[in-house]
Order: sequence, then C-alpha cells, then structure tokens
Amino acid sequence: MTSLDATTSPVLAAARRARTAAAAVAPLPRSAKDTALLAVADALEARTAEITAANAVDTDKARAAGTSETVIDRLTLTPERIRAIASDVRDVAALPDPVGEVVRGSTLPNGIDLRQIRVPLGVVGIIYEARPNVTVDAAALCLKSGNAVLLRGSSSAYASNTALVAILRDAVESAGLPADAVQLVPGESRDSVRELMRARGLVDVLIPRGGASLIKTVVEESTVPVIETGTGNCHVYVDAQADLDTAVEILLNSKAQRPSVCNAAETLLVHRDIADAFLPRALDALADAGVTVHGDARVLAAAEDSKVTAVAATDEDWAAEYLSYDIAAGVVDSLDAAVDHIRRWTSGHTEAIVTTSQAAARRFTQLVDSTTVAVNASTRFTDGGQFGFGAEIGISTQKLHARGPMGLPELTSTKYIVTGDGHVR
Amino acid sequence: MTSLDATTSPVLAAARRARTAAAAVAPLPRSAKDTALLAVADALEARTAEITAANAVDTDKARAAGTSETVIDRLTLTPERIRAIASDVRDVAALPDPVGEVVRGSTLPNGIDLRQIRVPLGVVGIIYEARPNVTVDAAALCLKSGNAVLLRGSSSAYASNTALVAILRDAVESAGLPADAVQLVPGESRDSVRELMRARGLVDVLIPRGGASLIKTVVEESTVPVIETGTGNCHVYVDAQADLDTAVEILLNSKAQRPSVCNAAETLLVHRDIADAFLPRALDALADAGVTVHGDARVLAAAEDSKVTAVAATDEDWAAEYLSYDIAAGVVDSLDAAVDHIRRWTSGHTEAIVTTSQAAARRFTQLVDSTTVAVNASTRFTDGGQFGFGAEIGISTQKLHARGPMGLPELTSTKYIVTGDGHVR
Repeated sequence: MTSLDATTSPVLAAARRARTAAAAVAPLPRSAKDTALLAVADALEARTAEITAANAVDTDKARAAGTSETVIDRLTLTPERIRAIASDVRDVAALPDPVGEVVRGSTLPNGIDLRQIRVPLGVVGIIYEARPNVTVDAAALCLKSGNAVLLRGSSSAYASNTALVAILRDAVESAGLPADAVQLVPGESRDSVRELMRARGLVDVLIPRGGASLIKTVVEESTVPVIETGTGNCHVYVDAQADLDTAVEILLNSKAQRPSVCNAAETLLVHRDIADAFLPRALDALADAGVTVHGDARVLAAAEDSKVTAVAATDEDWAAEYLSYDIAAGVVDSLDAAVDHIRRWTSGHTEAIVTTSQAAARRFTQLVDSTTVAVNASTRFTDGGQFGFGAEIGISTQKLHARGPMGLPELTSTKYIVTGDGHVR
Repeated sequence: MTSLDATTSPVLAAARRARTAAAAVAPLPRSAKDTALLAVADALEARTAEITAANAVDTDKARAAGTSETVIDRLTLTPERIRAIASDVRDVAALPDPVGEVVRGSTLPNGIDLRQIRVPLGVVGIIYEARPNVTVDAAALCLKSGNAVLLRGSSSAYASNTALVAILRDAVESAGLPADAVQLVPGESRDSVRELMRARGLVDVLIPRGGASLIKTVVEESTVPVIETGTGNCHVYVDAQADLDTAVEILLNSKAQRPSVCNAAETLLVHRDIADAFLPRALDALADAGVTVHGDARVLAAAEDSKVTAVAATDEDWAAEYLSYDIAAGVVDSLDAAVDHIRRWTSGHTEAIVTTSQAAARRFTQLVDSTTVAVNASTRFTDGGQFGFGAEIGISTQKLHARGPMGLPELTSTKYIVTGDGHVR
C-alpha cells in the first residue's frame, strides 16, 4: 500500500530485488529447491576456511571490545560447527515441501471446484542477534518454503554473515535459482533495521529473533506484519494432587536442564495443600542444581529449613524471564489462583501442570491460554525439533498466523483456486 | 508487551473489560454460545421499534447533512431488514463451533501425546463504516468463535449502533455470558480509533472493514496486529484460446452484476491473438451494461467501431478500484505479460482467467499470487457464503494468518497440548 522509493535506500533496493526473486522461486518444484539446498551444504563445507577467517575478524573485534567469553563462544564458528550447520541444511532439504499442499478442498453445490493450497509468503525478513548459524538456518528454511529472505544479523557477526551469505548466494545461483533469493541487509547501523520495518508492500513478514528489547522494538515500530517470537516466562504448577517424584523431576528439568533458552521455566507455583510435602524436597533439589529461589512469604518460610539460597520475590520476579539459575516461586490457594497468576504474568509461551487428577489437568489446559500447555511433562518440550517438525524458524508467542514452534508450513500462506466451466453468479 | 493505563482512557478501560470477558467466554461449550446467539436473534426482533427509532436519528442527521440517498439507504434499518439480521444470527448459531477442533495431533517417538487445538483469538476489534448490520454480524461471529468483540462503527451510525449493542449486551447477559463480551467503543471521534490501534496487549487483532483510506490508516498506524481486508482491483484475463461466449459472460458478470463490491472486476486484459475477435463483442456488451471503458491504445482502436464509451487509460486506471460502471482494459502480448501486469497493479484480491487451454490455466494459477485465482469462473465467487463457509467477517488481502474470505476458523488461534507421564528431556 505504501509507495517506496527504492532508489534512495539500499535496504529498499534489496527488498525490491528480493521481491523479484521471490516471484521466481515461488513456483519452483521441490527438486529445484532441494538441489539448491544441497549445493549450499556442499559449498559451506568446501569453503570452511573462508568462513572461519571471516569469523575470526568478528571474534577478534568482540574480544578487543571486552565481550564475555560466553557471547564469544556463541559467535564462534569452528570447522566442526560449520559441518553441523551444513548437515542441518541437508536435513531441511529432506523435509517435505509445504508449498502446493491442499489445505482444504471441495466441490461447491454449483459444481465449482474449490481448493485452498499453500503458497510461499513471498519476502521474509529475519532480524536476529549474535549466532551466525541462524543466517544459514533461516535462509535454508525460507528457500525450502519458496520464499526470498532478507537477513539482518547482528553487527557483531557482520563479517561472518557477509562470508556466509556470499557462499549461500553463489550456491543458490549455481543451482539455477536467483542469487537475490538470499540477501544480507546492507549496512551495520540501526537505520537498516528501521528501513526494513517500514518496507510494507515489499516485505511480507518480519520475524525478530533475539532478546526481549529487540522484539519489542520491532513489534511496536514495524508497519510490516511481524511474528513475535520467543520471550518465555514459563510456569510449572504443582497441583494439590501430584506425584512428588514426578513434580521434582519436571521442575528441575524445566528450570535447570538449559536455563538460557526460552522454554526454560522461570516460575514455580505450588498448591497450598501439597506445599508442606513438596517444598522441602523441591527447594533442596533446586539448591543442588545451583538455583536461587525468589520466593513469596510461604516459600521463604519453607526455605528457612532448606539449604537453598532464597530471597523475597517482587513483581519484577513474577514478570522476569531470568534465563539463568534463578526461579520465582509462590504458593497458591487453588488451581484457579494458579491460572490467575499465570494469566497476569505469563509471556504466553509454555505452562506445565504436574497432577494426578484428570479434572485438574482438564481445567488447567482449558483455562491457560499460552502457545503450549504441558501436562506431566517438562516445559522444555516446546520446540520444533521435539514436536517433530524437523526444523524451527522460531517460537511464535503471538496469536495471529502461527503460535508456538514454527516449522515450514508456518512460512507459507494460502490461496484459493476456483475452477468452473464458465460459472457466473 | 506495552503497559497501558486503562484509568486514563475509556477505550482502554473497555478493552480491559473485554479481556476479562474473553477469558470467561473462551472455555464455554458450544451450547452456551448458541443459547446466547438465539437470545440475541429473539431480542432483535422483540425490540425492533427501539432499533428503528434510533436508526431514524442517524438517517435524519444524514439527510440534514445532505448525504446521498444511496448512503442513507445503506444506513437504514427497516423491520424487514432487522428480521433478516436476526435470521443471519440464527444461521451463525447453526454453524459448527471452531473452538476445540484438533488441527493436528500425533504421538511423539518418546510417547508424549501432542495435540494442536483451535482456541479463540481473545479480544477482536472491528473498525467499520456505514452499515449498522455489521454490528450484529461481527458480534455474532466473534461470540460463536469464543471471542470478545470491541465494535467501532461509523459515527454516522452511532445511535443505531448504540441501540443494537445495548440489545446485544442484554441478550448475552440473559444467557449467562458476560455483557462485556460485546462492547461499542466509547466516543465518536477519531481519537477512539487511535487508542484502539495502540491497545497492544489488550486487543489481539484489529479488522478494519470499509474504504481503502480507513484500511490504509489502520494498517500503517496500528501496533495491534491487523488483518487487512477487502480492497479489490480484480482482473479478468481472456487468454488466446478462450470460448468467446464464456469470456463475455464472465466479463459481464464480474464487472456489472454488482459493481460496488470488492470482488467485482476492475480491469480486463485480452491476449492480442484473440483481441480482434473478442473486443468488438466485449465492448458492445459492456456498452449495453452501461460500462465506460478506460482503454489502452489497442482497446481504444477497437472501441472506434463500437457504441461503447471509451477514454484513454492512465496509470491511475490500472490501479483503480472503481466500484462503479467503469473498467480499465488493455491488450497484452502473452499470458506472461498479463501476469506481469497483474503482479504490478493488483491489490491481490481475485484474478480470473478465461481459457480452454489446460496449460494456460495451470501457468496462470501458478504464477498469479492473489487470495483467489478463478479459472473459467466469475471473480464474484470470492465470498465466504459462496465458498460454503456459512458466514464471513471480511476478505483478507494479506498473507499472514488468513487470506481470502474469513469464516469462523479464521477468528481462532491454536494452542498445543503436550501430555506426558512425567516426561523430561
């Protein structure tokens, strides 16, 4: 709807080239797309030295700037990691093609044949932080689903991303597809993100992947439709009737198996009737795992008899996505009180209930409105790979278009085909 | 994500009440929602005098302001029209409930049961113009799909909408549902629309229904996710191989059966190989239907021998959604040239091809990227009723979430239910 002058902006010029490439890629059969993906995987392996050299520029710069070694590790590409990335691309090639799938179809009473079929979205923009492997993952998923992709990675990975995208483009072109189906958004400054967010009419969807502040900016400022991803303030609720061993195991797994990811638990809620039996065991287990508890009054009272480190919880704790060895914890008077607490504070990602009561499981799954509700299972299962999607472009925490882990079908739209023999109204 | 202060704004206060109502309506079984809808239908008929009295206030005001009789007719509610509206509500009650439908499900390799089920969106905002029947239609569809609705109608229908919503709320409440599931957005000024567009976190989706300028404003300014609806610059392409009778019939039906609607055709494209045979017949037929042709050079040359009124087409004509007895018309050198023209100018609503060639039909449906591609059928079939959806909240012309006619399933999101026996990773 917006008239955009591509001549004045390299970002918009790139988006316009992506649009042309998208029209060429959309009707391609699976074989053409898979050939390109396999060429990409081969090229990544063949040109590993080029990638690691470029990556060294980024990691040297990060080290000079005093970046933490954890972040530098996320940024680092080794030959082994590059082989793993290439292997992921081959896995994407092996997945079924979502494009062309008939979503529904019928013959209407007047004899018209109606079919709704999956088609690519068009031009997908991905705005992401740190990890350069996202560059390849996202490009592979977009290509497989017949889309052109505009990649806007972190400036801290600019050299790595530039090298990777050059290799991707060469490989795509060698397979007969337009190189412009994969582009790095030009420019390292924030302005390029801003231009991408205003490219409505050229870019069909923006998917921000990264920290909460990046996602918030894109969601609030973009005129291009956005799929909000990833913020996870996940809850584990231990019901009045729960197996204590199961509850401890699910709590620990949800919190501590990998605390830095969005499907890790950040809040524990315990029904008052089981608190006396459960909390001593839970707090000790959390202590053993190195977790600090931010508790309400009843949890703090229980913590006095435990070796756990416990501090008083504030509203910031109920809202927090710690992504660390911390957990907020409270005692609730009922299942409905747990649901109310979750409704108030959740980011809508994943909430788990541990219960032996069928009625409680049923009520919790009905009332909790998040992408995923887990019954007697860890919050950590909310994941495209775990769900059997074979790949994941992110986890949508919004309600429109896609909700939860997004695989290839979530990178498509649909169109209707109406076939008649001269039918008129 | 945004923190919103409901105390300072009646619109945000209404949105907050809608949010509470939405949580109560979402888990209701079909029977509770249908009972409320039937109560609404009965109440509309029982309180017809109240509605027509309020409506007279609006129509008197419009007449005093010199509004055209066409617009006043659209605004007018007669007892007969109210009966028809009530009957539509009963039809919505008779439709299947989309909520709870299992979209997909499987048992994962680790034994976890995974189900993706339809859930309501939550709070739906509808911003619409003139016709007060939309007030009832939209409320009925939102209730049936378990959503709360915020209705922001035209200020020209404010008295009618106020009366209708009062009746809707009474009926909903009498059936045991929260009255706040249906609310009229307070205030007649543009400010209330602006506040609604900034209510991210309280309102889950905004659906603008009305003219192009309303839709453009909402799409560009809203931080709440939007479903873009309805602008239709639809094309009819007559291929080199086409049955001339069929082509004339489809052209006439697409253009002139009801020119004021979004699925009416606005542009005719004719393959050059059939132009000499087709254009004389087509232009005379358009003349008989009272249609003015805005033609390119080749069409204007053909028009010299026809009784049709023809003027030279400009770029504005290729872009126009006339909604009147006008059509842009051009001759193209190939099917691909027709596709290129459509890609450049279409609003992405509906494009039809008339052809006897299977190869041409296949290529056109592959390359044209609009909500609906019609083969040997009128553009006028793009409609929820025609598609057998039983109802329609609008026609989405965007690619995210819903594309084409939107029925009840398009007013839902999904959530995943993960059920285990203490599963951890």
